[in-house]
Amino acid sequence: MSDVFDVSDVSGRPGSQSALRRQNQQRLLSALRSGGSQTQAELARQTGLSTATVSNIVKALAAAGVVSTEPTTSSGRRALSVTLEDDGQVAAGIDVGRRHLRVVLAGTSHSIIREASVALPPGHTATDGLTIAADLLDSLLAEGGIDRRALLGAGVGIPGPIDRRTGTVVQGGILPEWVGIDIRGMFRDRLQIPVYIDNDANLGALAQVSWGPHQAVANLLFLKLGSGIGAGLVLDGALFYGHVGVTGELGHTTINEQGVICRCGNRGCLETVASTSTMIELLSRGTREPVDTRQIVERALAGETAVLRVIDDAGVAVGRALAHMANLVNPETIVIGGPLTDLGEILLEPVRRGLSRHAVPIIGETTNLCMSSLGDRAEALGAAAVVLARAGLARPDTAMAQVTQL
Amino acid sequence: MSDVFDVSDVSGRPGSQSALRRQNQQRLLSALRSGGSQTQAELARQTGLSTATVSNIVKALAAAGVVSTEPTTSSGRRALSVTLEDDGQVAAGIDVGRRHLRVVLAGTSHSIIREASVALPPGHTATDGLTIAADLLDSLLAEGGIDRRALLGAGVGIPGPIDRRTGTVVQGGILPEWVGIDIRGMFRDRLQIPVYIDNDANLGALAQVSWGPHQAVANLLFLKLGSGIGAGLVLDGALFYGHVGVTGELGHTTINEQGVICRCGNRGCLETVASTSTMIELLSRGTREPVDTRQIVERALAGETAVLRVIDDAGVAVGRALAHMANLVNPETIVIGGPLTDLGEILLEPVRRGLSRHAVPIIGETTNLCMSSLGDRAEALGAAAVVLARAGLARPDTAMAQVTQL
Repeated sequence: MSDVFDVSDVSGRPGSQSALRRQNQQRLLSALRSGGSQTQAELARQTGLSTATVSNIVKALAAAGVVSTEPTTSSGRRALSVTLEDDGQVAAGIDVGRRHLRVVLAGTSHSIIREASVALPPGHTATDGLTIAADLLDSLLAEGGIDRRALLGAGVGIPGPIDRRTGTVVQGGILPEWVGIDIRGMFRDRLQIPVYIDNDANLGALAQVSWGPHQAVANLLFLKLGSGIGAGLVLDGALFYGHVGVTGELGHTTINEQGVICRCGNRGCLETVASTSTMIELLSRGTREPVDTRQIVERALAGETAVLRVIDDAGVAVGRALAHMANLVNPETIVIGGPLTDLGEILLEPVRRGLSRHAVPIIGETTNLCMSSLGDRAEALGAAAVVLARAGLARPDTAMAQVTQL
Repeated sequence: MSDVFDVSDVSGRPGSQSALRRQNQQRLLSALRSGGSQTQAELARQTGLSTATVSNIVKALAAAGVVSTEPTTSSGRRALSVTLEDDGQVAAGIDVGRRHLRVVLAGTSHSIIREASVALPPGHTATDGLTIAADLLDSLLAEGGIDRRALLGAGVGIPGPIDRRTGTVVQGGILPEWVGIDIRGMFRDRLQIPVYIDNDANLGALAQVSWGPHQAVANLLFLKLGSGIGAGLVLDGALFYGHVGVTGELGHTTINEQGVICRCGNRGCLETVASTSTMIELLSRGTREPVDTRQIVERALAGETAVLRVIDDAGVAVGRALAHMANLVNPETIVIGGPLTDLGEILLEPVRRGLSRHAVPIIGETTNLCMSSLGDRAEALGAAAVVLARAGLARPDTAMAQVTQL
């Protein structure tokens, strides 16, 4: 491997010429990763390097195929636009849902090379999930003509809290068949590549600040609203795991002290009033046709009163739980993800109402609330981001740069 | 100033002899700050330095008066115990309460040199508070025979959320007379030393991991339960401020949707059911004698049924709000501070009950709940800790080491 490829190596005698050259190169690559394509003049401004140094580094990187260059004009003057190229290495992101499984293949420049998803049978076991994921990964590699040896690793998102002391799914979660299993070891043994596992909501949060439009946000709460309700937290620019790794469990905020029993053992939790399972249950009464999440979205968009009411009640309850969370950790941005994102303002409006009603005024006024623009790909993209971060290819100045997944 | 005093300077050419000596010295002083008095052998183990290096550094530091040594025995062998001495510089910690003001003077080794508190009139203005604080600080300096020039700075704790964008107390807090005032500038102009301000609950949290018994805890929630209810958060080893600085507002968690109006404008907030003001109001009905917080503690300890019931109801509500917070940030330890700490298990038991009832099982099982052992001094000690941290004298491996107060 030539010196120019060895971008993660900043060791060597400090102050030596080669160490300095590597550091400058690393700084320039970081600027390209965080800022996308830029002219040499912009890169010089952003890195503080001289234009001559930038030009020399760009020449070497272009010769090695790490970047490509293209003539352009900037303020009427001739300029050279520099773009980061994938270096051929690939990160796999695997999102295991309760009812679906998605795999993405991402390039080192955070390009999406290939992706696919399949339905999972209810009550699937960890072995089922692994087999389906491995097969899907293999077929994506084959379709893309990608050698397995190009795989940097796989990130795996699981829809349940993970006890970081043991690396296993916590009892009482949404995947009872997966409890107590060494998921990381199992995937690693089968895939024969480095594997990182994390909770899906954490990966959704990571996706917002790495692939999504919130790269400048240091404090972000990502709410996954689906058959379960959980949140991932980016705090002070890094994913936050707390003491044992079980964070963001706001699906179990008590909303109605005398409400129905929740799978966690408590009563009247947010999940019992606002999950998609509850919406489906409410809308299935008195009808023989099965209702699914996509129908909820379609019927709401068509203006059906009962569906709108169910969503409104759920939204206000979600907003109330979010208000209490925002009162505690004062996020800059709250992003809502999951299968209902297409509802847009139909869901956002009642959530915003609940948030404003229950947050202290300054929190209600300063918290930005929006839908995830990454749709149902957020978790898989977050999983791929973990792999890139672990390979030293994170976008700097984002949570990814400090990722410490299992 | 001799080289040996210049402990914060780790600059200079890297790798040079003098830079290395300073770094080793710094490491040894850090070990003494975090671990207290230790033998030379223990210091060598903790720092990774050779016993000869430790011995040389200790000799130089002792000659300069930075440490003192005393012969002792360890495992039956002769040893030399090394103790950090104050270097003559002093940090002031000022805690401004709604009804009291406390000042502590702390030495650079985290010794408490002097402290005193006075009552404040209700509705006091920021100017009142400043004058009383400045006078109390002057009298403590005079009593201790301490030159004003020895003051490193003053930390000031305020019982209300502080908007870090402006450095002012947020509207709707517990000190309406202080809203919108540049408290830091006012104190700095009067005291003529560096001033750092922060919310009292944040400082209480900082005190737990710096002066208190929780120095090894990376994720701690400090709940101040008084006429207001607020929390300070130490997350991943640092005080957490969120987006605009308003965190830990769990006093405004909705407990009773149809409850009484709270000063924040919402209904049925935790403060309206569990603050000491509410307890006083409940216990004052049908009696002409005024009730105060101290009487609540005394009457509860004497076993008076009505008082015990009021505390029990408040405790369960506090536990419920704490459960939702713990579900979100998964703290290792929750510490309760404020004027009711002497209640001990009488208050802790219902709080624990509410916490277990409303937290997801793994959170309820792994969260340590205890009373603050620092009593009503926590906030002032935290304020002094900020000053020491800013002077590079923080205990390392604690939140203090990363403090970033206003």
